Amino acid sequence: MKLAVLVGLSLMTFLVVRRGYSQQDDRIVRLAELKIDPAQVEAYKSALEEEIEASIRIEPGVLTLYAVSVKGHPDQVRLFEIYRDAASYQAHLQSAHFKKYKQQTEGMVKSLKLVETDPIALGSKSR
Amino acid sequence: MKLAVLVGLSLMTFLVVRRGYSQQDDRIVRLAELKIDPAQVEAYKSALEEEIEASIRIEPGVLTLYAVSVKGHPDQVRLFEIYRDAASYQAHLQSAHFKKYKQQTEGMVKSLKLVETDPIALGSKSR
Repeated sequence: MKLAVLVGLSLMTFLVVRRGYSQQDDRIVRLAELKIDPAQVEAYKSALEEEIEASIRIEPGVLTLYAVSVKGHPDQVRLFEIYRDAASYQAHLQSAHFKKYKQQTEGMVKSLKLVETDPIALGSKSR
Repeated sequence: MKLAVLVGLSLMTFLVVRRGYSQQDDRIVRLAELKIDPAQVEAYKSALEEEIEASIRIEPGVLTLYAVSVKGHPDQVRLFEIYRDAASYQAHLQSAHFKKYKQQTEGMVKSLKLVETDPIALGSKSR
């Protein structure tokens, strides 16, 4: 009886871990490297902050949107983005807040380089 | 009486938000761009996965270690790292698991570019 429970628990653990892995496998992780018009950096940052706040709050499939600028070069912006899956990423592109951000920042972004990636390890803790 | 409670609650909310912001201000956010010896990519990824798992599990001040490779270029690795504060970052550099990783991967890493950053917005949800 005890053995049966142990085997049952081990199987459950295995399934949960497998499920965790397959969910991670679906994730879309993308980097972006932007150059912003130096005269419009503050306006760009405001629009970006608003878009990130709305995306994380409203969209269940937008898991991470990290935005930083290179130290000493506020016009060089880097993004690190994690979406739950491809459908979540497509939904994000169609969202009202993303479209508003693109329209607002059209004249501020001098160049945009998107980098598609394969995750190796995504380690984080809640805080 | 009701007004006093409301004012009290608003003040508490304000303080919590301020505290949240000042904590965020202390964070160290760093990017790294690595080129790995193509013949040793799998060994490098194993060492990196182990180091990330240990850092997140053991070190309270290591908040995020995201590692990806550029799609189609497994030898081009990008890291996105968040530490709670400067002391946490220094402690990480002195940790046994980080030193082991550096030693293990010394002959695998062909180049390493560190990019110091200023956070603009760090949006994420637990998952």
